[in-house]
Amino acid sequence: MTAETHTRTLSGGSRTFKRSTLQEMLWQASQPGVLSLALGLPAAELFPTAAFADAVEKVLSHDALALQYGPPFQPLKSHIVDLMARRGVTCKEDEVFLTTGAQQAISLLAQVFLSPKGKILIEELAYPGFLQVIKPFAPVTLTVPTHLETGMEIEKLEELLTEGERPDLIYSIADGHNPLSVSMSVEKRLRLVELARYYRIPIIEDGAYGFLQYETPSMPSLRSFEDEWVFSVGSFSKILGPSLRVGWIIAPPGMMDVLSVVKEASDIDTSTFSQRAIAAFLQAGHMPSHLSNLCSEYAKRRDTQVDAIRRYFPPSSAVVRPRGGVFTWIELPSHIDTQELLRTALETEHVAFIPGRAFAVGQSVAVDSCLRLCFCNCAGELIEEGIIRLARALEQFRLREPEHLVNR
Amino acid sequence: MTAETHTRTLSGGSRTFKRSTLQEMLWQASQPGVLSLALGLPAAELFPTAAFADAVEKVLSHDALALQYGPPFQPLKSHIVDLMARRGVTCKEDEVFLTTGAQQAISLLAQVFLSPKGKILIEELAYPGFLQVIKPFAPVTLTVPTHLETGMEIEKLEELLTEGERPDLIYSIADGHNPLSVSMSVEKRLRLVELARYYRIPIIEDGAYGFLQYETPSMPSLRSFEDEWVFSVGSFSKILGPSLRVGWIIAPPGMMDVLSVVKEASDIDTSTFSQRAIAAFLQAGHMPSHLSNLCSEYAKRRDTQVDAIRRYFPPSSAVVRPRGGVFTWIELPSHIDTQELLRTALETEHVAFIPGRAFAVGQSVAVDSCLRLCFCNCAGELIEEGIIRLARALEQFRLREPEHLVNR
Repeated sequence: MTAETHTRTLSGGSRTFKRSTLQEMLWQASQPGVLSLALGLPAAELFPTAAFADAVEKVLSHDALALQYGPPFQPLKSHIVDLMARRGVTCKEDEVFLTTGAQQAISLLAQVFLSPKGKILIEELAYPGFLQVIKPFAPVTLTVPTHLETGMEIEKLEELLTEGERPDLIYSIADGHNPLSVSMSVEKRLRLVELARYYRIPIIEDGAYGFLQYETPSMPSLRSFEDEWVFSVGSFSKILGPSLRVGWIIAPPGMMDVLSVVKEASDIDTSTFSQRAIAAFLQAGHMPSHLSNLCSEYAKRRDTQVDAIRRYFPPSSAVVRPRGGVFTWIELPSHIDTQELLRTALETEHVAFIPGRAFAVGQSVAVDSCLRLCFCNCAGELIEEGIIRLARALEQFRLREPEHLVNR
Repeated sequence: MTAETHTRTLSGGSRTFKRSTLQEMLWQASQPGVLSLALGLPAAELFPTAAFADAVEKVLSHDALALQYGPPFQPLKSHIVDLMARRGVTCKEDEVFLTTGAQQAISLLAQVFLSPKGKILIEELAYPGFLQVIKPFAPVTLTVPTHLETGMEIEKLEELLTEGERPDLIYSIADGHNPLSVSMSVEKRLRLVELARYYRIPIIEDGAYGFLQYETPSMPSLRSFEDEWVFSVGSFSKILGPSLRVGWIIAPPGMMDVLSVVKEASDIDTSTFSQRAIAAFLQAGHMPSHLSNLCSEYAKRRDTQVDAIRRYFPPSSAVVRPRGGVFTWIELPSHIDTQELLRTALETEHVAFIPGRAFAVGQSVAVDSCLRLCFCNCAGELIEEGIIRLARALEQFRLREPEHLVNR
């Protein structure tokens, strides 16, 4: 009784489904004793669990409909309107569409805008969860490179559009890019939305990390510059708790019906229990101080990690201190293959990361000597310990495979 | 800023998306003063809220990972194995795949088994939420009729298969059929799984109502007769609380990887908070007595509704007392159009139901004089009140449109 038994009956797309790199990493990283810098898990010790427990208790004791199906909870939408104001966005409750996390948000938007064999514009290095979303559509993929300090190369995008390319959709993580950790410059943000407006191309702004910013001034959401063509995705996963599975899309009111139909087919509605509990937590006024503590602690962890990389890694490694998000992106000397490094790191140092190749949209991107590290989900000493272990693995890796290196 | 603005950019499928009948009904039925027998909402006053609040409190105070992402929670899987034993199913934890409710379960299975323009076997009257799921695939739809006392006409299915038809998938609600309220006879269950096994066609067994059975002996799940070709879907929505959004699929272990990949793209994982809270509720031993109380109360409500229909509706109306589920299905005299009746019922009697036409897979099914009522979500007197109001609407409807009737 294996998948092979059912192979004849699996749909065309499903036959090629394998466990994703992220799933493999989740499994390996969860083995006892492994120090994982692989996944973008928020720091569990910083969850506002006690305040959230109070909110849940209040909801379950006062709200008879807390366990029932229900329409989207208006008070939560109002709180999201307030949250988005922090990102420079002026919107109303009827522009807030609630989803089962940001992942569902991008999945719904892809279903709405992408036809089978449609065309998509994406960066050369991208969030694998979005690639999984679009895979069943077998889309034509246009890619543009990303500058490590200013974000998506908008000039390349413009070239493609001028040449006549018309993607159905642009996917962008403007803040705390996954995996590149860059935040897009304001100039590029303005030019990107200008192009989207002119060519009438919807942008999915994946803003999962948008509230995690460590420098002032904080970067405004793409949606703050354009109401009609930017579909801005947000989530409570990184700022409250991912297990609640609540996210949102800021979209024009006229798009709510079509989104509702696709959403209903996917999972009926977003947990009304989570919706009410989060609304009660926000109503109690906990979010501003929680966010401020979270950003201050994450900024420290970021600095610890970047400083340790600069101290312990080979001198020709390159890393940029990110303004936001939860990742650092490292370019090692070009003779090092990070997929092989990962094997060594897991076997001998019990430390995990994600090799750059896992994020490559096409085969031609030069990314084999890059890796992504998460800095948010362990505290100071463990972060430094992780980098020291990785540096040792790098050392061993060189000692163990001299011929391989000589041949390069 | 309406959907029209984006029409050029909407994907082919999305252009035809409209608010579903269910969404319209949810909206109308939620208007103040409307007595709704339309939707299959469980009875909120029977939710085990206090016991569930204890479970949540325990989880939030003891489990540091309650708000974190996480792999499927093994203790919950064990409890589901025990629950399925009540349905005659012998399975193991590694055959339990957790989903964001039953709706996501059927959506994932459709994605796994159905290719664009694939072929599906379904009853002539079916759950609209499943029709929404398959719509983007633009499938070829083979239909078979349903007998109101024994379920899907398996002989018709066999005829189609003998003629050479090979659907990619069979969809079946064997227990508490939605909308027909029938539970399939054991003989038909055996024959159905025999055919699926012989022709190697996966069955989605939508078992959302499988634990709501009011007669002995209770009906065994299709999965109790066949491990490999029955994908049995269950849910806590109707037996604990739909707002938790937790359901499951019982599937061969070899299918877990492919399901995981499609699931991850949809919404990463099923709320680990809900998973842990439900597991704690089950661990405390609440489910057996809760289920027994629920079934005994729902059986009373069913009897109240069926008796009232027989007393107040026109004598030529037909209704079968259902063995399980939450609906009754009524055939009114053939000159009555229930879509028109609904308008009258809402306007003058403020009572809602769903007309049979909303469930028809094709246009040719004779269903215009049928309607579906829910009996579970209001208590005794209100159920009778609902039927009395509907009977008055029927009366008015006849008085208001005499020519229309005379012409038939």
